[in-house]
Amino acid sequence: MTDMVWLNGRLFPADQARIDPTDRGFLLGDGLFETMRLVGGEVPQLERHLARLESSCGVLQLPPPSRETIRKAIHALQTACHITAGSMRLTVTRGCGPRGLLPPNPPAPTVLLTCAPHSGDVTAPLRLGISRFTRDGGAPLSSVKSLDYLPAVLARMEAVAAGFDDALLPGIGDVIAEASAATIVLLLDGELVTPLVEDGALPGISRARLLEAGLCGERTIPLARLDEMEAAWLTTALSVQAVAAIGEHELRLDAAREGALRSFLFG
Amino acid sequence: MTDMVWLNGRLFPADQARIDPTDRGFLLGDGLFETMRLVGGEVPQLERHLARLESSCGVLQLPPPSRETIRKAIHALQTACHITAGSMRLTVTRGCGPRGLLPPNPPAPTVLLTCAPHSGDVTAPLRLGISRFTRDGGAPLSSVKSLDYLPAVLARMEAVAAGFDDALLPGIGDVIAEASAATIVLLLDGELVTPLVEDGALPGISRARLLEAGLCGERTIPLARLDEMEAAWLTTALSVQAVAAIGEHELRLDAAREGALRSFLFG
Repeated sequence: MTDMVWLNGRLFPADQARIDPTDRGFLLGDGLFETMRLVGGEVPQLERHLARLESSCGVLQLPPPSRETIRKAIHALQTACHITAGSMRLTVTRGCGPRGLLPPNPPAPTVLLTCAPHSGDVTAPLRLGISRFTRDGGAPLSSVKSLDYLPAVLARMEAVAAGFDDALLPGIGDVIAEASAATIVLLLDGELVTPLVEDGALPGISRARLLEAGLCGERTIPLARLDEMEAAWLTTALSVQAVAAIGEHELRLDAAREGALRSFLFG
Repeated sequence: MTDMVWLNGRLFPADQARIDPTDRGFLLGDGLFETMRLVGGEVPQLERHLARLESSCGVLQLPPPSRETIRKAIHALQTACHITAGSMRLTVTRGCGPRGLLPPNPPAPTVLLTCAPHSGDVTAPLRLGISRFTRDGGAPLSSVKSLDYLPAVLARMEAVAAGFDDALLPGIGDVIAEASAATIVLLLDGELVTPLVEDGALPGISRARLLEAGLCGERTIPLARLDEMEAAWLTTALSVQAVAAIGEHELRLDAAREGALRSFLFG
């Protein structure tokens, strides 16, 4: 019994949960989400996820659900799904509204929590294609994990169609920003480094943890230095994946560093 | 009886139509839409809307609904709603999918048609605030009316909060692109002009009709020339609205040109 969802305060079988056709998340991408790891029936970095959600809701001028509501939803859904290890996705939209861009005041947000088993599994090392889609780190929404995810979707689809596993999105000015839905960590000049938020990196939870622990630095990483890159990984809230190549440039695998990253992030 | 919608081949009372919580339009903004004028029970520029929809579906690698399907949906919904004058919105998403960015292959798109009366009413002349949100005419999706509409939503909300009626979004390099959900037509150097698609203008249907008829030219319009702008209008598929001011710069009203625009587009 895994196909349950939590929607606006109630549990539903997934095939009975109803999003209204006037939901602004559906019509206008007017909302945001968090993808969280579930282990032992708990969400390990929950406070960080909720803090980011609240900060992003502030950017969207959207009242966030209370932390107590989310905690109860996680517990109720995890219990109903009998999933102890996997992932949860929390989606918050500005809810239903009349025709047009302006929302009702106050809005009645839609809050959806879903659950999936077996995420974050380690895959074969990934080959990344450099995308024609870019990330503008200076845009007002670039730090928000909003529902406007179509560029990332198409970047991934194009990369896969070209024989890669994922897309690497440049920022403005021929720098590296991130993968379609993951932080990139690179071994460069003998150090682990990750792109700046100002260069288009989404401020991910795993990224923040690595930076705070001093396991990784952040800096502008020009695409022109591709040939000097030794190794790379993609990190998300769920996984660490090795990168085998970026475009035509082959990277080496570094099991020791990879193990250290995974052990620190996911114990 | 106006609260009917057409969803995936069937008519529903709006409060019974169900969007699935795994719909990629809801979760990822993975889809697009058309807003169309309804008059005398017909959609006057339907072939243009359908051609743009098909072209945009091509960019999204999404199979478009057939023209026959859409024609039948319009007829069925218009009949059920008893609305002869108003607007219709056609939303197409990549449909339901599993967790992650990659869609099922082939996808089963969601197609939603909704209807509203009394749109396109003439309002008092609008005051536009210059937005911090920008449009990148070089981005792969800038010509697509996709569901990723959050920047436009926030641009509008911020403009209204600042005492304006709508937002004017710059393109890259301090040029004018468009309003939050409308083409801008300006009277400059004694001519009607509208920004280039390359400068961030969405290729709207009314915009195309004005250009083809020679009633308006297209060119790069630097924000630095704001003081020289004499008059302006916002055009959509539904309406022509006069602009009273852009930022602090007051414009004059030009009832003759406005009447000519409205008569040509909606006459």
